[in-house]
Amino acid sequence: MAGIVECVPNVSEGRRAGAIDRIAGAISSVPGVRLLDRTSDLDHNRSVFTFAGPPDAVEAAAHALVDAALREIDLRGHTGAHPRIGAVDVVPFVPLAGTTMDECVALARRFGRAVAQRHGLPVYFYARAATRPDRVRLPDIRKPQFEGLQDLMSTTHVPDAGPPRVHPTAGAMVTGARPPLIAFNIELATTDVAVAKRIAKAIRESSGGLPQVQALGFELTDPPRAQVSMNILDTSVTSLPTVWHEVERRAHDAGVEVLRGELIGLMPLDAAVQVTADALRLEGLTRDRIVEAHFIDQAG
Amino acid sequence: MAGIVECVPNVSEGRRAGAIDRIAGAISSVPGVRLLDRTSDLDHNRSVFTFAGPPDAVEAAAHALVDAALREIDLRGHTGAHPRIGAVDVVPFVPLAGTTMDECVALARRFGRAVAQRHGLPVYFYARAATRPDRVRLPDIRKPQFEGLQDLMSTTHVPDAGPPRVHPTAGAMVTGARPPLIAFNIELATTDVAVAKRIAKAIRESSGGLPQVQALGFELTDPPRAQVSMNILDTSVTSLPTVWHEVERRAHDAGVEVLRGELIGLMPLDAAVQVTADALRLEGLTRDRIVEAHFIDQAG
Repeated sequence: MAGIVECVPNVSEGRRAGAIDRIAGAISSVPGVRLLDRTSDLDHNRSVFTFAGPPDAVEAAAHALVDAALREIDLRGHTGAHPRIGAVDVVPFVPLAGTTMDECVALARRFGRAVAQRHGLPVYFYARAATRPDRVRLPDIRKPQFEGLQDLMSTTHVPDAGPPRVHPTAGAMVTGARPPLIAFNIELATTDVAVAKRIAKAIRESSGGLPQVQALGFELTDPPRAQVSMNILDTSVTSLPTVWHEVERRAHDAGVEVLRGELIGLMPLDAAVQVTADALRLEGLTRDRIVEAHFIDQAG
Repeated sequence: MAGIVECVPNVSEGRRAGAIDRIAGAISSVPGVRLLDRTSDLDHNRSVFTFAGPPDAVEAAAHALVDAALREIDLRGHTGAHPRIGAVDVVPFVPLAGTTMDECVALARRFGRAVAQRHGLPVYFYARAATRPDRVRLPDIRKPQFEGLQDLMSTTHVPDAGPPRVHPTAGAMVTGARPPLIAFNIELATTDVAVAKRIAKAIRESSGGLPQVQALGFELTDPPRAQVSMNILDTSVTSLPTVWHEVERRAHDAGVEVLRGELIGLMPLDAAVQVTADALRLEGLTRDRIVEAHFIDQAG
């Protein structure tokens, strides 16, 4: 298995800088792995790491992350705005250059079973690695949260791996495989958050909009303006240009200009190629027309 | 010297497939080098190869190309529409990921001196590797062509390396370093070539338009439509989005729609990042926000 896999784990600690640093250090100490991004949120009390590398190295780094997080985090004392069931809440694996979704599904399940065995953690497989339809969506798995999970362990929440007992300090873990997710916001030239909320509702899949798009309208304060905040879950289904044009069209219909985009974290090369193809009307442009794409290290 | 260098040599043979294949084979037989593109033109009787790799490998492949081309090509029998002074007419080196222009200037001069010595060829340094102002532009060097070069060898065309004698079968060679060149065309929804010619004249540097842009208007036959054909010589000076918007604006002023873009060959990652930044208004977007950019092999 050659190529590059991305891993974007969420851990339930966003406040104690020392603990977060040690978890980050555990990831980046694995040779071949690059820690590309880390974001901690005080309100959510939660950190998201983005790392990537050859599959074997990424798997080893995911284990190193679990080891470190279980040492650092005790969920019994955890408060935060974001729903969670575990110290290591969710570990998604994402196929990039030279890897396939099937390989990432196999990687996630192997990783999940190993974590279950090593740490006695109940583990759930989600997204493309789900083994049942009610495990595909993360919110469905996470709904009872750490505090309510034990009551459902023998009914709706029988683990896919590991014991049917919530770990006393680390709870449970979700892992799986999914396409690259792009977190992308668009700021509007208005302070009227109602416009952003209307656009968000119109374009998100859950209310009948664009498939594989999540969207919310927010009010930014500094400077004051309305924002459409989005996750694009699968750019092979709905691309960034499609989202951009749709938001722009609906903003113009409301008499509002689009000010700027904002990329949270990183985007995969294929997403930038889609944007380039759309902007320059280069039908059928693929990554092999980008010189450097031929030199992405796939040594594995 | 680590990183990736691109090399885009032009050789004066575009008709004999066997000879072209053997030259291509000489390039791609060098370990670490990837032959990314090859284009042969019957009218011009000329082939352009695009290859890239670690600098040492690219330098070795450029020598392999010269060896093969000098075996295959005898300029005494060469006819074709395109001006040329040599069997290997021009060998530009282009810095990409992890390499600098200075490194490519040094590489081009070392390569040129070695070719001059090995093959007894007069060699000229051009573009960023030029040692005098009248050697910066390729057309100035190429103007006398193979047939007229000997007469100027002791006046305007004293070689930068090698003997002041045109090689009987291989002529002379130009080598140098330059930024990535993007060959990009825009097709217009009109058969009126005058519109394309007017736009080309307005945007090209030589008639007072956009710096580092060459442009011509052409008439395509199948399907019939007008085309603005461009070379963008340095996207750090004039980017693809600037060119696109300018052509689009002038086309609209003429009441003509822009149909599509056409990329000839490849584009560097940074150019796609510029297009993405413009299309999504992501100010300050850089390649390090592209996941795979962190895995471009710079082992050298």
